[in-house]
Amino acid sequence: MAKKRNIGSIPGTIVYTGNVTGTQVSINYLEYNQNGYRAESALNNGEITIYPPIDEYIQWYDIRGLHDNDLMQKIVSSFKIHPLVIEDAVDIHQRPTYVEYLDGHFISLKSLEFNSEKSTVEKETVSIYFGNKFIITFQENEDDIFKVIRERIINKKGRVVAKGADYLAYIIVDYIVDNYFSVLDAVEEQVEELEESISLQSDDVDKLSIYKLKKNILKIRKSIAPLREAVNLFSRSDSKLIDSKTLTFIKDVYDHTIQIIDNADSLRDILSGLQDLYISEVSLQMNKVMQVLTIITAIFVPLSFLAGLYGMNFVNIPELRAQNGYYILIGIMVLIALSMIYFFKSRKWF
Amino acid sequence: MAKKRNIGSIPGTIVYTGNVTGTQVSINYLEYNQNGYRAESALNNGEITIYPPIDEYIQWYDIRGLHDNDLMQKIVSSFKIHPLVIEDAVDIHQRPTYVEYLDGHFISLKSLEFNSEKSTVEKETVSIYFGNKFIITFQENEDDIFKVIRERIINKKGRVVAKGADYLAYIIVDYIVDNYFSVLDAVEEQVEELEESISLQSDDVDKLSIYKLKKNILKIRKSIAPLREAVNLFSRSDSKLIDSKTLTFIKDVYDHTIQIIDNADSLRDILSGLQDLYISEVSLQMNKVMQVLTIITAIFVPLSFLAGLYGMNFVNIPELRAQNGYYILIGIMVLIALSMIYFFKSRKWF
Amino acid sequence: MAKKRNIGSIPGTIVYTGNVTGTQVSINYLEYNQNGYRAESALNNGEITIYPPIDEYIQWYDIRGLHDNDLMQKIVSSFKIHPLVIEDAVDIHQRPTYVEYLDGHFISLKSLEFNSEKSTVEKETVSIYFGNKFIITFQENEDDIFKVIRERIINKKGRVVAKGADYLAYIIVDYIVDNYFSVLDAVEEQVEELEESISLQSDDVDKLSIYKLKKNILKIRKSIAPLREAVNLFSRSDSKLIDSKTLTFIKDVYDHTIQIIDNADSLRDILSGLQDLYISEVSLQMNKVMQVLTIITAIFVPLSFLAGLYGMNFVNIPELRAQNGYYILIGIMVLIALSMIYFFKSRKWF
Amino acid sequence: MAKKRNIGSIPGTIVYTGNVTGTQVSINYLEYNQNGYRAESALNNGEITIYPPIDEYIQWYDIRGLHDNDLMQKIVSSFKIHPLVIEDAVDIHQRPTYVEYLDGHFISLKSLEFNSEKSTVEKETVSIYFGNKFIITFQENEDDIFKVIRERIINKKGRVVAKGADYLAYIIVDYIVDNYFSVLDAVEEQVEELEESISLQSDDVDKLSIYKLKKNILKIRKSIAPLREAVNLFSRSDSKLIDSKTLTFIKDVYDHTIQIIDNADSLRDILSGLQDLYISEVSLQMNKVMQVLTIITAIFVPLSFLAGLYGMNFVNIPELRAQNGYYILIGIMVLIALSMIYFFKSRKWF
Amino acid sequence: MAKKRNIGSIPGTIVYTGNVTGTQVSINYLEYNQNGYRAESALNNGEITIYPPIDEYIQWYDIRGLHDNDLMQKIVSSFKIHPLVIEDAVDIHQRPTYVEYLDGHFISLKSLEFNSEKSTVEKETVSIYFGNKFIITFQENEDDIFKVIRERIINKKGRVVAKGADYLAYIIVDYIVDNYFSVLDAVEEQVEELEESISLQSDDVDKLSIYKLKKNILKIRKSIAPLREAVNLFSRSDSKLIDSKTLTFIKDVYDHTIQIIDNADSLRDILSGLQDLYISEVSLQMNKVMQVLTIITAIFVPLSFLAGLYGMNFVNIPELRAQNGYYILIGIMVLIALSMIYFFKSRKWF
Ligand SMILES: [Mg+2]
Ligand SMILES: [Mg+2]
Ligand SMILES: [Mg+2]
Ligand SMILES: [Mg+2]
Ligand SMILES: [Mg+2]
Ligand SMILES: [Mg+2]
Ligand SMILES: [Mg+2]
Ligand SMILES: [Mg+2]
Ligand SMILES: [Mg+2]
Ligand SMILES: [Mg+2]
Ligand SMILES: [Mg+2]
Ligand SMILES: [Mg+2]
Ligand SMILES: [Mg+2]
Ligand SMILES: [Mg+2]
Ligand SMILES: [Mg+2]
Ligand SMILES: [Mg+2]
Ligand SMILES: [Mg+2]
Ligand SMILES: [Mg+2]
Ligand SMILES: [Mg+2]
Ligand SMILES: [Mg+2]
Ligand SMILES: [Mg+2]
Ligand SMILES: [Mg+2]
Ligand SMILES: [Mg+2]
Ligand SMILES: [Mg+2]
Ligand SMILES: [Mg+2]
Ligand SMILES: [Mg+2]
Ligand SMILES: [Mg+2]
Ligand SMILES: [Mg+2]
Ligand SMILES: [Mg+2]
Ligand SMILES: [Mg+2]
Ligand SMILES: [Mg+2]
Repeated sequence: MAKKRNIGSIPGTIVYTGNVTGTQVSINYLEYNQNGYRAESALNNGEITIYPPIDEYIQWYDIRGLHDNDLMQKIVSSFKIHPLVIEDAVDIHQRPTYVEYLDGHFISLKSLEFNSEKSTVEKETVSIYFGNKFIITFQENEDDIFKVIRERIINKKGRVVAKGADYLAYIIVDYIVDNYFSVLDAVEEQVEELEESISLQSDDVDKLSIYKLKKNILKIRKSIAPLREAVNLFSRSDSKLIDSKTLTFIKDVYDHTIQIIDNADSLRDILSGLQDLYISEVSLQMNKVMQVLTIITAIFVPLSFLAGLYGMNFVNIPELRAQNGYYILIGIMVLIALSMIYFFKSRKWF
Repeated sequence: MAKKRNIGSIPGTIVYTGNVTGTQVSINYLEYNQNGYRAESALNNGEITIYPPIDEYIQWYDIRGLHDNDLMQKIVSSFKIHPLVIEDAVDIHQRPTYVEYLDGHFISLKSLEFNSEKSTVEKETVSIYFGNKFIITFQENEDDIFKVIRERIINKKGRVVAKGADYLAYIIVDYIVDNYFSVLDAVEEQVEELEESISLQSDDVDKLSIYKLKKNILKIRKSIAPLREAVNLFSRSDSKLIDSKTLTFIKDVYDHTIQIIDNADSLRDILSGLQDLYISEVSLQMNKVMQVLTIITAIFVPLSFLAGLYGMNFVNIPELRAQNGYYILIGIMVLIALSMIYFFKSRKWF
Repeated sequence: MAKKRNIGSIPGTIVYTGNVTGTQVSINYLEYNQNGYRAESALNNGEITIYPPIDEYIQWYDIRGLHDNDLMQKIVSSFKIHPLVIEDAVDIHQRPTYVEYLDGHFISLKSLEFNSEKSTVEKETVSIYFGNKFIITFQENEDDIFKVIRERIINKKGRVVAKGADYLAYIIVDYIVDNYFSVLDAVEEQVEELEESISLQSDDVDKLSIYKLKKNILKIRKSIAPLREAVNLFSRSDSKLIDSKTLTFIKDVYDHTIQIIDNADSLRDILSGLQDLYISEVSLQMNKVMQVLTIITAIFVPLSFLAGLYGMNFVNIPELRAQNGYYILIGIMVLIALSMIYFFKSRKWF
Repeated sequence: MAKKRNIGSIPGTIVYTGNVTGTQVSINYLEYNQNGYRAESALNNGEITIYPPIDEYIQWYDIRGLHDNDLMQKIVSSFKIHPLVIEDAVDIHQRPTYVEYLDGHFISLKSLEFNSEKSTVEKETVSIYFGNKFIITFQENEDDIFKVIRERIINKKGRVVAKGADYLAYIIVDYIVDNYFSVLDAVEEQVEELEESISLQSDDVDKLSIYKLKKNILKIRKSIAPLREAVNLFSRSDSKLIDSKTLTFIKDVYDHTIQIIDNADSLRDILSGLQDLYISEVSLQMNKVMQVLTIITAIFVPLSFLAGLYGMNFVNIPELRAQNGYYILIGIMVLIALSMIYFFKSRKWF
Repeated sequence: MAKKRNIGSIPGTIVYTGNVTGTQVSINYLEYNQNGYRAESALNNGEITIYPPIDEYIQWYDIRGLHDNDLMQKIVSSFKIHPLVIEDAVDIHQRPTYVEYLDGHFISLKSLEFNSEKSTVEKETVSIYFGNKFIITFQENEDDIFKVIRERIINKKGRVVAKGADYLAYIIVDYIVDNYFSVLDAVEEQVEELEESISLQSDDVDKLSIYKLKKNILKIRKSIAPLREAVNLFSRSDSKLIDSKTLTFIKDVYDHTIQIIDNADSLRDILSGLQDLYISEVSLQMNKVMQVLTIITAIFVPLSFLAGLYGMNFVNIPELRAQNGYYILIGIMVLIALSMIYFFKSRKWF
């Protein structure tokens, strides 16, 4: 399938490049602090509601659905965001990145999920734009991947309600990065299954499975590797919009990001070891087939020659007239066969 | 074909190293700002017209055709450019680069296109030299690759008319980098076709196609990889000729350049996985042919020996005189054949 | 076995991710300086005792057993540690790391052991948190891996009793890093055994052993590589909690960490050379089997043809009637066989 | 051939390590500026003439022949150069380097040439030592590789006569680096020839040619790679002996050095792709030979068995007495042969 | 053989980890400057003599033999050296390193020698500790590897007698690094011999030799690679103990260290190219054997079938009764054989 791309257009042009269409776009608004919260829908009949800032409250606009380019354009004007932010937010090919604009900071990353039916890794682009007391999140579809986080806020679990928008941004990144571990664990399980079937010389090794696993690991690596640099920038920011106490937490996510890349690389190396093992197994098995052929052919070829020799019609072959000629020849043949078997055995050819 | 090279000559010697010849060189002049524009031909009957600078207007000289060395020499004197700039602009082997000279900045990069007929990637060297309120672009041939950009200016689309020559330089780089995505998508499509035909064990896999795809990806990588450093320098310039607001945009192109390299590397890794798959497929298929040979030969060699044995002309072979000898032997042969087939089946050799 | 993970929970949530269960958690308390020491159990009937700081004494809480999440929660509150410290201390998947918090510094690393029975490398996560005059160590199980160090303190051996908590932290890291050498030596011994059996063309080469050794080396590398950066940070700290004289010692451990990685890489390269050798051995051996087949078949196929020729029943084959026809043919056959053997020998095919 | 080495001697010991012997050493002296020039031989009857510095004139001593250790020793004393300079100048194994001494700067690099007869890359070590208004160049033999440059000076072509010794040093480096492109183009042509003969499955592929090309590329890379760092240091020098305007030119050579390394790496990658292609070609061809064998053998083995069966001498084989037995059997054989051919064809085995 | 290790002991514990035992330890004392020298034995009857510092004289203690742990302990106390220095000096597994302590600087490196009998590279750990006007060197055994240097001092050759302890340290490092070139040249010679025997398709290629050479190169690389960083630190030291003029010389050794690593890497790459060549040679040779088999078998299998056909005992085979049947069949067989040979020749299968 041809990819959709935002190519050749004016910088800041908003073109959704994903495959979601038709579904209703929704914008969930949540306003909260330690004292309480308010949850609303900020998109009604195609009209965006901009809630006025309230003292000491964090405002979170959670946009689900990026395929309505006009609506996205409205968001740019309503929130006065740099146009490059929204261009990147609706570009699902956007590489994980962290950019500090004047009034807000932008984070783009990939949310990964392991599809156990198709044995593939699915990815969704998630973007976060946060500033002073507000945060806007962008997702392609209606899946409520932030449900856990919203419930923490509503139920006042953890530190998040006592902190700023920077901490909420951290919480989202942390949540997505945490999920990478599940995805990698699922892939690791597949690698271990493959390892078992190869080391047991099972014949059911799907020839494509090594290649598919490799592609999955490549996909994970490509989604996560750029995040390392992005989270690093985030964790070393000296922006006023980020509390220094939050930086300690972001450094923790940074650590996890490196760990994930380590794990992926380690899986890739194990897989490549498995591939070597598989290739040498296949070659060894061919070897064995070859050896059986060798032995059978090598034993019978001289015997058949002898039989052919005494099947010749020369008028004068004295051996043919000997009373025990046949038995003597049979004896000789058995001797030849046994000595060849002994020779091959002694060389450990079978 | 031997390459043309500018070798051993005085630094700053202008020698066009490409293959374009004969076609007419043209210089398109465009003068614009938010209020309006003027488009002229700056090259008439071999004479270059130098338009005097006008307040608040950007002057763009778009040179198409670099093969007239004398004309290029005139440009050096007319515009008082550092001679190394033009030497690099007419050298199509020039590596993508960014150099800040005293009165202007020089960018050289490759414009790529996918030739779907020959399945190859074609490249053209494009150079940009911009200073205060002026920009000069260099292309090898008459193709109007900047048409889209010129129309944006004429139709006052986007920010470009309200900005300086630095922004126009950015727009051109952005436009060319954007096109890399199309080229990579085309190559990716070919990789996917190859993947399908290999995984379906189709026999139509062109043995050269993996090699050709590899070369294409190498070519793309070689054209783009140096641009990363060049655009990085551009985006971190502290030159007075570049507006700090433009830097935000250039950082966006930088991001895309890294993404392109990521994509190319990822394609290269997938391709190398495909190559492993292909090699193991070929080896497995050979294995199967081998096994059929084994089975046929291994079964008939002992049977043929038995037949030869009873084709011998010994006067005294009692079995030959038995009334049912022939039938008994046939029975024994069938038994041998069946037990060998069972043995091979049980070892999953076929 | 599915891995336990602390995924999707609130940052600072304490979830032990290892496999130890059921055993009793213990906290060994040791208070010491040059003048003497006091050893107590700081956990009695599930109650943690916090000993008040004494002038010029170092306090060491050695926690063995991390699986009681509630108890761990109590430790956070008792010692007023940053919650991320304990989250990482009980996460056995934690990558080796060094983090400086406000009141203390955190080090996480892996203690390795070679299991000679299963020929695998076992790892345990060990964490250290130290501040002004106190240190807390975290281990998964009751094994007393710090016995040697505790005895040094009690018997006043070495510098440790005259130094601060930073030096004790160093001593622990040094001790664990020292043990890596034993583990690598054990793996090296296995590589050498493999080398011997391959170079002697022994047939007992376990096909899996190269793969298993590779995995062991990968595991070691993955456990140690991140420690390099962690110890580097430790050795260059400008924290008030670390004495500058201790830094000289930490730089020594840093040196050892690099040496360990060098050794592991060198083993990996030797192993990959061995793998190449093994593959070429297997292929050469197959070659030899092939050559025997060639020679036997190639010699007997023409001879059998001749025998078959004179086994034909044409009424008119003059040779058959010659008195010495049989002997002449035998002579010809011997000649053919000898010249073929000579040909093959001269080509060094056997 | 054993290499000559300057090993174990006192630092600054002058030992020529190349193979040139016997030929006459010559020192060409050239004194020039914009107004004129004087060319002399500075070595007459073994006596070096030191020309006194003249205002505004550049003095160039071009030493051709480094094998007279005594003469070289005299040069050290005559010019008062740091002894390490001459030690490195006469050591043909010297790695390309740039060193700033107190009174002058030293550059060592390799001049490469492609020997089209032997298809090898030949290298010569060239060294440059320049200071205020003087330059000394060192070459192993009498070849006048600087002829082009000397003629530029004599004919007052280009900037060189108007500039200092630093610019002449640049011109020499630029000239040598320019020649690398010719060498790489020659190697590229060979790679392309190889590519053609492999992709056309020609049998004339010299088995050694891939290896030889690889070695050539390795040699080029080894000669040039260290130059990158050397020219980089040169281009970023803040020495008083180098004019800031010259630095712009040196940065241009730096660019070319990187481009050369890029090209060499790209050739290496293409070559390694070709090697993969060649190996898979060889393996595929073996496959085809195998398949022909399979088909011929697999078809005739059962037929021969049948013929052998009816060549047996049992007294009671009823088929033998059937009037059309022979014809029926022939028919059965044709059927068997055809169905096997159909089976193999359908599996695309030939 | 199990390695000796200093594991788990108190930091600064002196444990010799090498294999030398029994031999007498000796300490050679040399005191020198431009005016003269004094050579003594500083170890008599197990007692170390500490010579009082004399104005303007350099004191050199050359310790040969590190296996007497008690003696080493005495040296620590006599010279008041940091205990980590001696711990590292007697640890033969110590990675090449450079550490600046308060009163002196420590350098550890490997002295390599090529054992031409066993074709292996032998290494010895050499350590240097120097301060103001004194230097202590540590070697494992009695070999006088510093003889050349001592004679330079005694005979007042070169700069060394006019310089400080830093220059003597440099001279020792320079001397050891110089020897690396001989070792690498010896290995290169072996690689060239291997190259010749492979490219001449000699059958005497020892299958293990590639592997052994690889291991040698790995060993050299592992011994030298860390020295690069160590000498780099040495050459950039701003310690008062090192004269700035000496730094110029140390930079020269640094250059040689890089060159050695370059050479080793280049040898490794050539060797890996040779390995590819060898593998493809072996595979090609197998191919040829295969082709001979193919041709012989493929030609005789159909002929044997025909012979078998006319060896059948059907009562009614008209051809058998034809007067020239035998001759006609022989003619047909020759025709078949010739056309098959023509077919194989035309496909260049032999
Ligand atoms: Mg765009
Ligand atoms: Mg974008
Ligand atoms: Mg979603
Ligand atoms: Mg987390
Ligand atoms: Mg596992
Ligand atoms: Mg953490
Ligand atoms: Mg040039
Ligand atoms: Mg250029
Ligand atoms: Mg064009
Ligand atoms: Mg763009
Ligand atoms: Mg796709
Ligand atoms: Mg962007
Ligand atoms: Mg093979
Ligand atoms: Mg978490
Ligand atoms: Mg953690
Ligand atoms: Mg434990
Ligand atoms: Mg230690
Ligand atoms: Mg060993
Ligand atoms: Mg040390
Ligand atoms: Mg020397
Ligand atoms: Mg040198
Ligand atoms: Mg020359
Ligand atoms: Mg140039
Ligand atoms: Mg070409
Ligand atoms: Mg340039
Ligand atoms: Mg120790
Ligand atoms: Mg040590
Ligand atoms: Mg010694
Ligand atoms: Mg030296
Ligand atoms: Mg050589
Ligand atoms: Mg030097």
